[in-house]
Amino acid sequence: MNKKKIDIFDTTLRDGEQGPGCLLTLQSKLEIAEQLEFLGVDIIEAGFPVSSPADFKAVQEVSKLIKNAKVCALARARELDIDIAVDALKNAVCPRVQLGIGTSDIHIKNKFNSTRDEILAVAFKMVRYASKKIEEVQFFAEDAGRADNLFLAKMVENVIDAGAKVVNLPDTNGFCTPFEYYEKIKFVIDTVPNIHKAKISVHCHNDLGMATANTIAGLLAGASQAEGTVNGVGERAGNAALEEIIMTLMIKDLPVYTTVNPIYISKLSKMVERAMSNDVQANKAIVGRNAFAHSSGIHQDGVLKDRSNYEIIDPAMIGFELPDLILTARSGRAALKNRMQTLDIQFVEKEFELYYDCFLRLADTKSIVTDADLVDLCHDINKR
Amino acid sequence: MNKKKIDIFDTTLRDGEQGPGCLLTLQSKLEIAEQLEFLGVDIIEAGFPVSSPADFKAVQEVSKLIKNAKVCALARARELDIDIAVDALKNAVCPRVQLGIGTSDIHIKNKFNSTRDEILAVAFKMVRYASKKIEEVQFFAEDAGRADNLFLAKMVENVIDAGAKVVNLPDTNGFCTPFEYYEKIKFVIDTVPNIHKAKISVHCHNDLGMATANTIAGLLAGASQAEGTVNGVGERAGNAALEEIIMTLMIKDLPVYTTVNPIYISKLSKMVERAMSNDVQANKAIVGRNAFAHSSGIHQDGVLKDRSNYEIIDPAMIGFELPDLILTARSGRAALKNRMQTLDIQFVEKEFELYYDCFLRLADTKSIVTDADLVDLCHDINKR
Repeated sequence: MNKKKIDIFDTTLRDGEQGPGCLLTLQSKLEIAEQLEFLGVDIIEAGFPVSSPADFKAVQEVSKLIKNAKVCALARARELDIDIAVDALKNAVCPRVQLGIGTSDIHIKNKFNSTRDEILAVAFKMVRYASKKIEEVQFFAEDAGRADNLFLAKMVENVIDAGAKVVNLPDTNGFCTPFEYYEKIKFVIDTVPNIHKAKISVHCHNDLGMATANTIAGLLAGASQAEGTVNGVGERAGNAALEEIIMTLMIKDLPVYTTVNPIYISKLSKMVERAMSNDVQANKAIVGRNAFAHSSGIHQDGVLKDRSNYEIIDPAMIGFELPDLILTARSGRAALKNRMQTLDIQFVEKEFELYYDCFLRLADTKSIVTDADLVDLCHDINKR
Repeated sequence: MNKKKIDIFDTTLRDGEQGPGCLLTLQSKLEIAEQLEFLGVDIIEAGFPVSSPADFKAVQEVSKLIKNAKVCALARARELDIDIAVDALKNAVCPRVQLGIGTSDIHIKNKFNSTRDEILAVAFKMVRYASKKIEEVQFFAEDAGRADNLFLAKMVENVIDAGAKVVNLPDTNGFCTPFEYYEKIKFVIDTVPNIHKAKISVHCHNDLGMATANTIAGLLAGASQAEGTVNGVGERAGNAALEEIIMTLMIKDLPVYTTVNPIYISKLSKMVERAMSNDVQANKAIVGRNAFAHSSGIHQDGVLKDRSNYEIIDPAMIGFELPDLILTARSGRAALKNRMQTLDIQFVEKEFELYYDCFLRLADTKSIVTDADLVDLCHDINKR
């Protein structure tokens, strides 16, 4: 199969930082940007320069630091926003401005008190304006997830005509199922006559928990760029998690691929978690502390026989230190025996049931039986 | 459209509790079971009785407590497991035993060192054995997500012949995309000749972040039961989150529906979070503390004009107390002015830019500007 390389667009520093309480210091932004460059993402969205002096400065400094990735800055469809974004990017090796406007009827009416035709005209004018100031303009059709597909196609044709090189069709409110989002992206790609002049980008939010699946659906429908944030941080329920998108592309046999190196994922996740003081839950896919932990008897026994029974990703791929099996009240004989052997605890094979029985009684009172607990327990049994 | 009612199967007390460190006390299990009954789930999987004396006891007590939902207990495909599960359920109004065995070639070879034919025979024998002891038997085809579809169809036909009333096709390792899972479920439903004698259940894991999307895909393909856990807790990256499945069914126009009452979701989520000492991350869909919070300027302005601009779910539907807009460095003029008016802070309209400028400078140094910060700030400005 002839696979297509897709671009990974990270927006941790922009959309991710919009999450309540996720404000980053300049120092943190630079550290994260550098780590994103190690990871090898294709584009780093560094901020929204018009929004505050500190954000302007951050985009400026990230632009100076980053050498390989493109650096993007956000703007609304307004001249002032665009001017300031272009200014903040002036030291970037490969700068990109992303500007956009709402395209769902809900946004057009309730947010802008406008009409479809007016919105088309504003978008055209502002993309053209930006294209004269900077080579690479990305347009985002805000709330594309809830937009009428025919109007959306018209908008995409319109902004490509105006000079947009990339058109992002965000599911701003996380409203789509993968089937709906696939149909939407496919409809646009199949319908828009000048589509060959631009790349389509997918940008999904997680309000119904489907952001990653929608992103993959969009890529399968023909999009060439996927947007996400580290740990899935962002406004409300956050954005598609970059690590989930990347690892899906890595381990599934799909017609698209990425060139990022996932070995940096675990470190980057911890860096963002710390810098945003935004804890990643234990069972977060790929980067949660339990994402590769096995505690029940059936699973531990299976993993001891062969890790592939219950593991689809080798944690080493993302630079994650391999955890031990965790002993709990749901652990079985195979896991207990394995741990006792590892800890060099002596026991007579035919008395093993006694150890297991005592272990279960202890485990029913504690969430996790640690190595120290186990050594003490076996010591007590051996003394009897 | 003629919509089909689907069953919601909660496995927080069984698969959820398998998450490392998620052990529940008996008291907590009973409180959660009671709350699940308020929510109106159709089936509560209460535990895996053979695994430990405390789990046996928990299934026994949940069976006594629950009056409307069915109560299910897990077993491996072994007589002893089944006997003990049936025994633990003896006081349940509507008992169900779920028993199963691995069906992927990986499990058949690496876990059981067996063959497809042997596994078919064991499954048949054990389902028949269980069916003689209890009316409602659910079979789970473990690792169905990675199983060969033709063999899976053969297994489903086989266990329905043996008496299974429900057949669960779990994506045990969270390996499928929604398109793959849809095709798998549809293939089984379209192929198995005796399929009308049983319900198909979907049970997805979140290793690639697609559990909810896969669950919905399975329902769209014809499954009649969806399994999940509160907060998505469970082994590794956890299970499909019950609240995401339920709210997707509630707000999307799909050919399937549920009769649960989502008003209890928020309380139940907090109860499980506390009982398992397993923190829900701020940006967790539906139940995270920021799931309905808006902090950036563009979004706050939009929400002030009309909540539907950036909200697809009314938080009141799940019993979530409506949060205020949160003020941060990404907040805009509309949100600041709204908050100043709410706090009854006096200002001269034409001097508003001064307040906004001072606010932004403060916000650039803090992750969140609280009401107290704002009152102090404006007080300082007014003194000048």
